[in-house]
Amino acid sequence: MHILVTNDDGITAPGLLALAQEMRKIGKVSVLAPDRNWSASGHVKTMHRPLRVKRTVLADGTPAFASDGAPSDCVALALLGYLPERIDLVVSGINPYANLGHDVTYSGTVTAAMEAVIGGVPGVAFSLDSPENLGPERDYGPAARVARKIIERLLHNGLPNTTLLNVNVPYLPDERIKGWMPTRLGLRVYRDALDRREDPRGRPYFWIGGDVPTGVPEAGTDFGALAEGYVSITPLKLDLTDYQALERLQVWQNHDEENV
Amino acid sequence: MHILVTNDDGITAPGLLALAQEMRKIGKVSVLAPDRNWSASGHVKTMHRPLRVKRTVLADGTPAFASDGAPSDCVALALLGYLPERIDLVVSGINPYANLGHDVTYSGTVTAAMEAVIGGVPGVAFSLDSPENLGPERDYGPAARVARKIIERLLHNGLPNTTLLNVNVPYLPDERIKGWMPTRLGLRVYRDALDRREDPRGRPYFWIGGDVPTGVPEAGTDFGALAEGYVSITPLKLDLTDYQALERLQVWQNHDEENV
Repeated sequence: MHILVTNDDGITAPGLLALAQEMRKIGKVSVLAPDRNWSASGHVKTMHRPLRVKRTVLADGTPAFASDGAPSDCVALALLGYLPERIDLVVSGINPYANLGHDVTYSGTVTAAMEAVIGGVPGVAFSLDSPENLGPERDYGPAARVARKIIERLLHNGLPNTTLLNVNVPYLPDERIKGWMPTRLGLRVYRDALDRREDPRGRPYFWIGGDVPTGVPEAGTDFGALAEGYVSITPLKLDLTDYQALERLQVWQNHDEENV
Repeated sequence: MHILVTNDDGITAPGLLALAQEMRKIGKVSVLAPDRNWSASGHVKTMHRPLRVKRTVLADGTPAFASDGAPSDCVALALLGYLPERIDLVVSGINPYANLGHDVTYSGTVTAAMEAVIGGVPGVAFSLDSPENLGPERDYGPAARVARKIIERLLHNGLPNTTLLNVNVPYLPDERIKGWMPTRLGLRVYRDALDRREDPRGRPYFWIGGDVPTGVPEAGTDFGALAEGYVSITPLKLDLTDYQALERLQVWQNHDEENV
């Protein structure tokens, strides 16, 4: 079992270290992660410039690789042969904040897992639903242990290479996490606002600011599970086709043809 | 009718101009697009740096705005109030190359339309299935006219703010385009390969290279429609939940609970 660990917060992030350490209990781990933060960077394939990869070590002294590419580039590099040994599973995280609802297409953590599946390898994204105002002393231990249990369970059940899971863990001590729930994506409520400022030369610039997003904690959704103290496991797929809307379009088309 | 036109190739791209000119026949058009190419840049929300917006003009002398943000940032800027007048529709493109199958989460053209829907405004992405080896003399006329007809048809049918369409137009003269087909996303076949090189100082760098991707031209898919000379219209949704896999996870969960 050869597991690639990556993330979108960069190679020095404590969430990456915690995840890599737990994954080592399951199999051989390679770490190839971005050399900087790529939060909300989306699903990137860098083709306009070449990518660099540097050898480095994690804080526990284990070897790792850092790239100047996006999280999805790190996965592509590894799967396309930068890491010569075949990769059986890609895990991404642990992101310090939850990736829920509409977050998934923005999230570097989740798009790294998407890249794995496109490359024919199962991918699982792990995020911790911790508050924004915590310092660096955030405890990734419970989430990392949850990650190991979930991966062990997946391996036990057999892991098709189309598996793409988005896992969010409540920020609770081990004993207060109630279990896990299979969920669908819920409704993210962004509260972005444009913050117009002027530079010292009087020219405007704009921050995408506003309040921290919320979500609708409906039962059966990722938001709902976290709100009740459960780990949320949302299976995702890359076929974004809206099949209901497709049926409506087919009705239109028939109508058009009758009226030619 | 106030239509925002954006793209991922940058404000000077001829496909943007062609689209803006046709959209002006339908309503008031505002153009806010990136100041550079953002192909395969994914769904971005730029939060780590502020964004700049410059007034400029398109090649036909009409006013436009160029931002140093990603395509999705341009949409966010406009919807969050950089453009004071309410936006009724976001159109993105015309991308010179098709955006099919797995391309949609990478594509700046498509993620701009996603950002619109997240912001509560319908979004339509337009791409032209033209060969890579054409020069800048690519003819966007037929695709731009198709775009206008599709938008007019959408407006005639009423356009819910959840509408997210991915439109791909074959690279054919008007009279050889057979019509349009509602489609599902098909299977993209990437043929990426890692191209290792050494810089003048002997240090390696890596291009994500390889051959141009292909796809499976199955009937009913976007690839299939284009292969037959039809415009492909694929309705997309932002709920990526894999509901079939969700049922399987629920079975697991019940099994876990029985064996506690």
